[in-house]
Order: sequence, then C-alpha cells, then structure tokens
Amino acid sequence: MNFASDNTCGAAPEMIEALRIANGGAVPSYGEDGLSARLKAELARLFEHDVAVYPVITGTAANALALSTLVPPHGAIFCHREAHIATDECGAPELFTQGATLVTLAGLHGKISPDALEQATSRFVRGSVHHAQPAAASITQVSEMGTCYRHDEVRAIAEIARRHGMKLHLDGARLANAIAFLGCTPAEATWKAGVDTVSFGMSKNGALAAEAVVFFHPEEVRDFEFRRKRFGHLISKMRFVAAQLLCALENDRWLHWARSANARARLLAGILRDIADVEVVHPVDANLVFATLPESLILKLRSAGAKFYDWSPPERGRRLVRFVTSFATSQSEIEQLRAACA
Amino acid sequence: MNFASDNTCGAAPEMIEALRIANGGAVPSYGEDGLSARLKAELARLFEHDVAVYPVITGTAANALALSTLVPPHGAIFCHREAHIATDECGAPELFTQGATLVTLAGLHGKISPDALEQATSRFVRGSVHHAQPAAASITQVSEMGTCYRHDEVRAIAEIARRHGMKLHLDGARLANAIAFLGCTPAEATWKAGVDTVSFGMSKNGALAAEAVVFFHPEEVRDFEFRRKRFGHLISKMRFVAAQLLCALENDRWLHWARSANARARLLAGILRDIADVEVVHPVDANLVFATLPESLILKLRSAGAKFYDWSPPERGRRLVRFVTSFATSQSEIEQLRAACA
Amino acid sequence: MNFASDNTCGAAPEMIEALRIANGGAVPSYGEDGLSARLKAELARLFEHDVAVYPVITGTAANALALSTLVPPHGAIFCHREAHIATDECGAPELFTQGATLVTLAGLHGKISPDALEQATSRFVRGSVHHAQPAAASITQVSEMGTCYRHDEVRAIAEIARRHGMKLHLDGARLANAIAFLGCTPAEATWKAGVDTVSFGMSKNGALAAEAVVFFHPEEVRDFEFRRKRFGHLISKMRFVAAQLLCALENDRWLHWARSANARARLLAGILRDIADVEVVHPVDANLVFATLPESLILKLRSAGAKFYDWSPPERGRRLVRFVTSFATSQSEIEQLRAACA
Amino acid sequence: MNFASDNTCGAAPEMIEALRIANGGAVPSYGEDGLSARLKAELARLFEHDVAVYPVITGTAANALALSTLVPPHGAIFCHREAHIATDECGAPELFTQGATLVTLAGLHGKISPDALEQATSRFVRGSVHHAQPAAASITQVSEMGTCYRHDEVRAIAEIARRHGMKLHLDGARLANAIAFLGCTPAEATWKAGVDTVSFGMSKNGALAAEAVVFFHPEEVRDFEFRRKRFGHLISKMRFVAAQLLCALENDRWLHWARSANARARLLAGILRDIADVEVVHPVDANLVFATLPESLILKLRSAGAKFYDWSPPERGRRLVRFVTSFATSQSEIEQLRAACA
Repeated sequence: MNFASDNTCGAAPEMIEALRIANGGAVPSYGEDGLSARLKAELARLFEHDVAVYPVITGTAANALALSTLVPPHGAIFCHREAHIATDECGAPELFTQGATLVTLAGLHGKISPDALEQATSRFVRGSVHHAQPAAASITQVSEMGTCYRHDEVRAIAEIARRHGMKLHLDGARLANAIAFLGCTPAEATWKAGVDTVSFGMSKNGALAAEAVVFFHPEEVRDFEFRRKRFGHLISKMRFVAAQLLCALENDRWLHWARSANARARLLAGILRDIADVEVVHPVDANLVFATLPESLILKLRSAGAKFYDWSPPERGRRLVRFVTSFATSQSEIEQLRAACA
Repeated sequence: MNFASDNTCGAAPEMIEALRIANGGAVPSYGEDGLSARLKAELARLFEHDVAVYPVITGTAANALALSTLVPPHGAIFCHREAHIATDECGAPELFTQGATLVTLAGLHGKISPDALEQATSRFVRGSVHHAQPAAASITQVSEMGTCYRHDEVRAIAEIARRHGMKLHLDGARLANAIAFLGCTPAEATWKAGVDTVSFGMSKNGALAAEAVVFFHPEEVRDFEFRRKRFGHLISKMRFVAAQLLCALENDRWLHWARSANARARLLAGILRDIADVEVVHPVDANLVFATLPESLILKLRSAGAKFYDWSPPERGRRLVRFVTSFATSQSEIEQLRAACA
Repeated sequence: MNFASDNTCGAAPEMIEALRIANGGAVPSYGEDGLSARLKAELARLFEHDVAVYPVITGTAANALALSTLVPPHGAIFCHREAHIATDECGAPELFTQGATLVTLAGLHGKISPDALEQATSRFVRGSVHHAQPAAASITQVSEMGTCYRHDEVRAIAEIARRHGMKLHLDGARLANAIAFLGCTPAEATWKAGVDTVSFGMSKNGALAAEAVVFFHPEEVRDFEFRRKRFGHLISKMRFVAAQLLCALENDRWLHWARSANARARLLAGILRDIADVEVVHPVDANLVFATLPESLILKLRSAGAKFYDWSPPERGRRLVRFVTSFATSQSEIEQLRAACA
Repeated sequence: MNFASDNTCGAAPEMIEALRIANGGAVPSYGEDGLSARLKAELARLFEHDVAVYPVITGTAANALALSTLVPPHGAIFCHREAHIATDECGAPELFTQGATLVTLAGLHGKISPDALEQATSRFVRGSVHHAQPAAASITQVSEMGTCYRHDEVRAIAEIARRHGMKLHLDGARLANAIAFLGCTPAEATWKAGVDTVSFGMSKNGALAAEAVVFFHPEEVRDFEFRRKRFGHLISKMRFVAAQLLCALENDRWLHWARSANARARLLAGILRDIADVEVVHPVDANLVFATLPESLILKLRSAGAKFYDWSPPERGRRLVRFVTSFATSQSEIEQLRAACA
C-alpha cells in the first residue's frame, strides 16, 4: 500500500528487458546511436508533427533546460503557485535561466486561468529594462492537484501567451495520465492546443529514469544542446535512455500504464468518498487523490501499512493528505486500503 | 574493432541483471532507499574511510558539482590544459561555480607537475579582490593522455595544494584503470595521497550511467545536496544508480574490468610499436593508446572496420590518433587489429 | 513641477562642492583612501554600532549584492509583492544569488505583515532539497507605497526572521525619509529593531550616485568584497563615492533634505485631499503620494506642466497616479500644483 | 611622485565643473536626458560611424557587459594571458557570460599575435557540444604591458576573428593613450581596423568614474540594456556620467590629457634608461613603464617618496616594477624622480 508517490515503485519489467536488448554491441555515444534516431521518428509519428527531441533523466532537468532555452535571463515565466517548477525544484528554473523571474498565480484546483494570466502579464511594462519581460507560460498537465486542463482551457492560455509574445511550455511529468483521462491524441493535448515545448516525462510512468524535451518548433531549440551538455545532462550511453522511452511507446504501453494508474485512483477516491468524515477536495482526473481525513483514520491507515504524504498541518483533528497511484499499483493494494478504511 | 571510446560499448550484462534485481517493490525515492545506504557503506569499506557519497549519472555533472562545492565563485581551479574539465565539458565548471577561473597548466604526458602548480598559484595575490583566489587543484587519474600519476606525484601536488589552502579534486572517470595499473588500494590512490574529493566514475567501466561524488571530509560537503537538486541531478528512482555502482564493486568486478581493458591496451600498443613507421607517444599505463600513424595505415585500418579518433590534423602524411579499450574489448578485436595492421 | 521621481532632480550643490574638495592630490584607489576610512567611522558613529561599509553607485547593486551575500543559491527571500527587488530590478536578486527564490507577499499599503511572513515561510520544508530554504526577509523603508514600518512592526518581522534562521535586510533607498518621519535614531530604525543589513541609499536624496551596503554583523560580510568586484561595482576612484555620502551626513544634511521632501509631500497630499473627486489611497508618511484622480484633472495638471507617473490603467474615468517629492522640490512647485488644481 | 596607477590621481578640474553645470534642474532619469543624447551624437561624430552607446562606471563592468552580450554561455573568448579581463577582474567575464571559457594566449610585450590566435581557435571543434565555441577575441589597447597594437596587427587579428565567426572586442581603458601614440583617428583605431565593440574608458584619463560601451553594429547590442540593468549598472542620474564623457571629448581634452601622460612616461623611461643598472623591458608606447631595477634603487626611490608597484618577486637583487603616469602627472614629479635616481 505505497501511495506516497509515483516514483517509489520500480520500473516496469519490460523496461529492464528493453535495456537488456539495447545493450548489444558498440554504438556511437552521446545520442548518435540508432535507438536515439528511432526515438525521434517515433515521437514525430506519435505527435503527428516534426519534433526536436532531447532525452534527459530528470523532470527538473527537462523543465529547467526547456525554460532556459525559451526564456532570456530578463524574462518572466508565469505558472501556477503550486507548479512543480515553483515549489519542488529548489530554484532550478531561476538558476538555469541566469535569474529569470518566476511569477506564480493562484488558480482553482491547481490550474491557472486565462484571466489570471492576462492580468498578471499586464503588470510588466514591455520594453522597460526595469521590468522582467513576459516570455513564457508554463502549465502542468496533469496539474499538481491531479486535475487536467481541457483543450479549450489550454487553447485560451495559449492564445494569451501568443498575444503577449510568450511561449507555452507544458510540464508533462504525468502527460500520459492526462491523455489517458482526456481520451485525446498526443497532438491534441499539445501543439494542436498551442503548446510549444513539452517536458515529456516517463520516470513516473514505468521508466527507470527517462524524460525528453520535445520542441515542436525547431527554431526554438537554439542552443539547447549546448545547455544540456553544460548542465551535465548529456549522457554518454544515450541509447539506454532512448530505449526506455521507446519501450514505453511500443504498443502504447505508456497509455495502458497511465490508464491503470488512473483507474486505481478513481477506485481509491471512491473508497474515500464513501466515508462520511472524508472529503475529496479536487476532481480526481488522473492518478492523484487529495482528501481531508480525520487524524484517527490517518493513523489507522498508516498502522495498516499505507504510505501517503501529509499535505497540510493538522487542523481541528483533520488533515489534507495525498494519495498517488502508479502503473504498478495493484488491485489488491486498493482492496487492502478499502479493508483498512473499514 | 571499436576503439573510439570507452563509452561506445554497452554495459556489462551483470549490470542489467543488477537493475532487474533492484526493481522489486516500492522503496523511498531520492536516495533514501536501502541500496543507496548500502552503497555508502560499501564505499566507506572500499576506501577505508568515512565518506559522503552522492551518485549522479554523468562525469561532467560529478566534476562540476564537486568543484562548485569546493570552490567559491571567486576561486581559481588549477588543472592540466588537456584536462576533461578544461577541454571537454564546454564550460560546465565555470557555469556551476558561477564563474570561477580555470587556470590550465602545461605538463608532460597529460600530468601537471608540482612545480608548474606552485608557479601558477604564485601569480594570484592572496586577499586581493582583483584576483581569483587559488581554491582547488584538479588532477585526472587516468590522465587524458592515458598516463597515471604515481603516489609520490599526487602527494607532492597535494602538499602544494594544502600549503596554499586549496582542495585537491580527482577526476576519476577512469580511476579503476589507474588502480588496476598501480596495483594499489583505493585508499592509497586517493585520501592517503592527499586527495579530498573524487569523481568516482563507472560509466566508462561497465555501467549504463553511474558516477558518484565521494567526499572524504564531511565538512566539505556543504550545500552539495542542494546543488545536485538544483542542477537537475537528483534522480527520483535513485536505487537504479546505486545498484549499478554496487554491481561494479561486488566481487571487485570494476577492477577485473579495468584490468582487462588495460591488458588489451597494452597488447594493442605492442602491435603498434612493432610497426616501423608508428610511434606510441605516451606511456600506456591504462586503456588509452596515443600513436602517430602514417595516413596510409590509418586508411587501411579504417577500411578494415577499426574505429578510433583522430587527435590532430594530418602533418607530413602522419597523424596522431587515439585508441581506447574497455572492459568489453575482446581478444578477438585485438587480433583483428593485428591482422589489419599486417 | 517635476513629481515623476526623486531621481529626476540633480544633486544638492553641496555635493558638487564636496567632489571638488575631494579631488585634490593622489590617494590610494579602490577604497583605501582617507575619505572611505572616514565614511566607515562616520557611519559607525551614526548607527552607534560597529559596521562594515561598502559604497556602490546604484540601489539595485546595493540590494542584489547584499542579498546574494546573505542568502545561498538555494535560499528563499521574502518580500512585499510591490518591493523594488521584486518589481523594478528585472531579476537582479535572482541573478546575483545564482537563482535564489523570491517569495512575494501581499500586504496593506506596501508593507508585509508578520503573519503573512510567518505563513509564507511555513510552506517551505526545512532541510528538504526540493524546497528553497527560507534565508532572508527584505523590507523596504520607506515602502514603495510611501508608508513607513513602525518599530514594533519591524521588530515583529525581525523576530519571525530570527526564529526561522533568516536574516533581515532593509532596502533603505529612502531610509532618510523614514527616519525623518519616525523621528527616531538611525540605530532605532535598523539594528535596534533587528535589521541585519541595510542598503543605505543617498542617490534619491541629494547625491549624484551613492549608496552603501552597511552590515551590522561583520561575520555576515563573508565574500561581499569579492562579489562587489566581480559584479563590476568596485570603483577605482572610490573617494568620490565616499565624499558624497560624507557630504550628506555632515550637519545632518541628509535628514534636513528628507524632512523637506516629506513636508512638501504632506502639502501636496493636502492639496489633493481638498479636491472632492480625489482620493489619496495610502498614508503619506514620507515623500510619495498615491492618489486616484479623474482623467480630466490629470490632463489639466499635465497641461500645466506637472510631471508624475500613471500607476494604473484608467478605470471608469479615473486613474491611480504617483507624485514624488525630493530634497529639491520647492515650495513654489507645490504652489504651482495648487494653482493648477484650482 | 605617485606612479602607482592612473587611478590614484583625482579627476581633471574641468570634470567637476562639468558636473556642476550638468546639475541644473530636473531631467528624465536612466539616460533619457539631453546630455546622454548629446553623448551618443558626439561619439558618432568622433568615430565617424553609427554607434550604440551605453555609459557605465567601471572598466570591469564595461568589459564584462560587452563580452556577455557578444558571447553565448558556451562561447570561448581569446585574449592575452596578461589581459585585464584574465588577470584583474576576478572572474567577472566568466560570471557575466554564465560561464564562458577564457582562453589565454602568450604573446610578446602584452600583445597577442594573429598566429597564436589562429592556432588557439583550431583546438575547438566547431559544432561539438563538448567544446566551447570560439565567439570573441578581446585585445587591450594600450596593452597591459604599455604597448600599442599597430593598425595592421589589429586588422590581422580581426581578419582571423571574422574567418572564425568571432567578434572583436577592444578593451580601451587607455584607448586615448593609444590614439595619442598612434596619431590616428578613433575610427582608424577601431572599426576601420575591424573592431566590433569598444570598452571606451575615461576613468583612468581625467574622469571621476566614466566608461562607455560602444557598439558599431547595432544588431550586436541585443539585450545589452537588460544586462546593464540586471547587473546593477543602470545609474538613475545618468546625466552625470554623460557629462564626464562629454567634458573629456570637448576640445579634444581626452587626447591632450593622454598626450601629456604619454610624454611624461617617455621622459620617465628616458631617465631610467640612462641608469646603467636598469633595463626598460617593454617598448614605452604610452603611459606605462616596466623596468627591472636593483633593489637598492627601488629602496632609494621609495625613500624619496616615489610610489610604484612591484611587478615580480625579487630575483638576484633585482625586481620588475611598473611606473604609470596620468594626465595629472606633473613635470615636477618627473624631475623629482630624476633627482631621486641621481
């Protein structure tokens, strides 16, 4: 019953097998190998668009490298105040960009609204050297609160970004879960809705450690490859990162895994909702469940071996907690939780 | 016949098996897992010293993170002019340190001499804000030219470093090959000779992608963990990096692999030395062979399928080239080369 | 009738005379001169405390150098969302600190409240490398809205800062105006209320270009001098910056100038308050007046030659504007404004 | 007898007068004033070329801002190993550029040779992310050894720079002295010889603190203004920096001052050359004299009140020292030195 995060599980067994197969013989290093080439072709096919693809091994690296390529040092980046880049990367975006300004926005259920974005950008005087210059909006899909932006929401944000000369970045650490929920194509979830660049994550969805920065507009790649090298993220035996991403895409495994995780989360949310004293506080679009539980229940669940994170300090005997499911969450874990709740 | 680099081969099959075994069940992420704890204990045992251990996945990250922890932004780092940190990391040390000064020294066969270090440090006025302040020396073991520092050479450099208040960093991307050649213990190769911090590499020696920064003095760790996170190098499923390093250490595999690579390089050098028109230009201490070959021979070898790097432009019909062997280089590859030379 | 800013006026004539006097003969450069030594002594006397004093020539440099000395790259800095460091320095604090996180707080009339600070710091988990670590609070005195923190307000903020291991920085671009208003000593306005480090500004109050970073705790100076040099702020003929600051302190000129500016602002606010359709929106503690005016009045004033900044877009025929007075604002300018309002 | 540096003297009295005149009335801040506009026009006239002009107040800021605008973070900058940017700015170029690589070249009498530049650039593989990419050459005119590049020398360097896609930066902290020596026009000394961007210094030549970055190609200005602001170098009362530069240009004062300094240096060098045991080691093109003196003579001169810098540790009873003259060096100071030498 480990619901602490979708990175506490290991990798899918298929991943290990993919590494074993990729391991035969000598190939050029630093991404000049055949698997890396195949990955680029597969992602172009998947996204139905020309893409530039750069594998890395952490989401923080993917986000910070992508943003520092899209945004000048004097740029401003707009994101939700709970966005991973604002709260969980310890200043990596500011570091990689040589000091760009992160502007954090409030917004219901972890999503920024077009209005909030429009209003926030208006505070920055264009062309004034005293003010950071609006340069990018970054949205997280699935959001940190477990919700998904709908296409029209993304399009509205993209439209404002365009109007203000900003790029739209999508932190897709859980993009698979969003696509599984939305029932759309990867193209619809990204460039067709106006997204320019994606941090395409697989580390939370079956891989050992594999992400890719995907650019839909080659002219925006600029000096990305130099940045990746200089920040220490150019892996010599790159075939092993490509192999993981290819393994996930093969037979749509990534979406099967995400659908499984989402389904488990829905079940888990249902169990919680059936308890009188529990409130599920955000829509459960994907694989994250946020709920306020009485301390007694929290204690009971933990005594039964359930792992999950506190998300707030206790208040009047209750507390907000977070449950995360993953591709590896089993039906029996859900049933154990149900039993523990009883 | 791939002698291009020791990163063009794959990983040792034992590595894949180690990943498979490490893959069972849920464990805490970000290095709080049992394998990461075991790695620290194993390295303490191996080095016969308390250590702080931080796994990362590239040598550039290991070096730049280590140096930026040891050196303030106004510091100067002294290294050989052919050192990896000076020539092959595209400015990563300067980036990570917020602009420290790299001072490059000439030196025979890729090694800096104590005298050159002493003389170079004397140019920087202590306490003057106009001058970078000597803060670290960095040596590479095996050096980029394939040679190994002897203990007394390291000790002499360490002594100068100490006298000038500098730390001694060792880029150990090929430390296994050096220890295999020197026939010493890891302790003798490092802290017993005065080394403070090691970039302990395994990516060139059997691993998929695994390095560790090893500090012998805990007080020098300072904000390393924040740096690793902020530069995007804190991997969530850290057990998989620890598993690779543990696999290498188990049964001294890392030294067996290194001995094999070194032995193949000696054979290869012997083959070249037997050819009248070829000169092996540096001592072949480890797994790198530098030699000047006539263009006709270069052409012949490449036609036969041998891969190796040019190391200089052609000059009077000859050219400096580099051959690298690895744990994966087979006896038959060496025999193929011998045949191709004939 | 120039109320655009307190930096559109020139310098006090005494300043030019001070430069003329300082100009005789050869003296050591880079702050080793006698005037720089006298400045340190004068500021120690003024603040009734040992001080480390470092002159620079812009407020942005003073703030960013001070903060980057107090705060590590993984630190978080808490300030009002309208603070100069957050809105008018184009990311300089993030740049100088190598990417520290700026956390902006709402707060009435440009001042942060102790409660808001307490609450904001609670969101950052101590010791977690995923989270920026609370490292400094920065308050602006006079605030950007023209209000002054009272001693107990500063003390309450300082107390929270201390409790959380944070330093308290004071952006004193208009500290003279605050001290003139509060009727307190410089010591009471700063270290006696718990302030650790001050950006002591004079450029807005009589000088050509002169600020000083004043540390009350020498151990916090750390590598400030190297930072000042490396960011290009170590002036060779430093005596000319020291001369300006000494000129201001001599005979308490800086306070006379500030009192004059404050008095003119009070008059100006009084004129505006007497107009039915005008609302002065913040207390006028010092030399800044914020008021909403009908567009017709704005037009009338500008036609009469008055200069002042718009502070918001127009809304229902009204607009927020800002008037600033300085040491150089004359009684006749105020009378001209009164006439223009009529 | 202060020959320590050309920044130990004060400013020319005309400078103080110019500040006094500039001080009347209110004008827009941050360089939007009339004097700043006039400065741009004057420099365009002086250089016979369209220019973009950005005043700053230190040479380190001018150089580091210029270079960080011309060079990407992954760029390499080539300069003499004794260049100010390499030895006296404590890593400012590396800091401002976010870690670009400084490549230092040996070269006779403080000047780099075209051959050395050509050879050094050839070590960097174009397009390889492992290697810094040649991006700028920086020459110092007058060099740190007091010598001047001749036009054909600059042109040859510029030609190599162009061929390799590099910009040519000129550190003109003492450009006036060079032009006075060469007897050429400012245009001939700069863009006509292939220079792209100049750090145009006046702080060592009559000003209190005034430099300007001068771009001859507007498209290379890019985000310079944002950089200047973010590094804290945008002065609010900019008129006072413009006033200093205009004062220097008026009636060619800057060249008169430089000619006077150069003439004094030639006299000084003549006095030294007449002493049997003294060797003047570099051509005295401008206002710097480097000579080896017996320790006894050094002691005698210092006892007589002469100030000058040691430039080497003592060796066999002799030592290299540096004498600097300035616009303020008087004939009588020279005569005092002559007397002291006798």
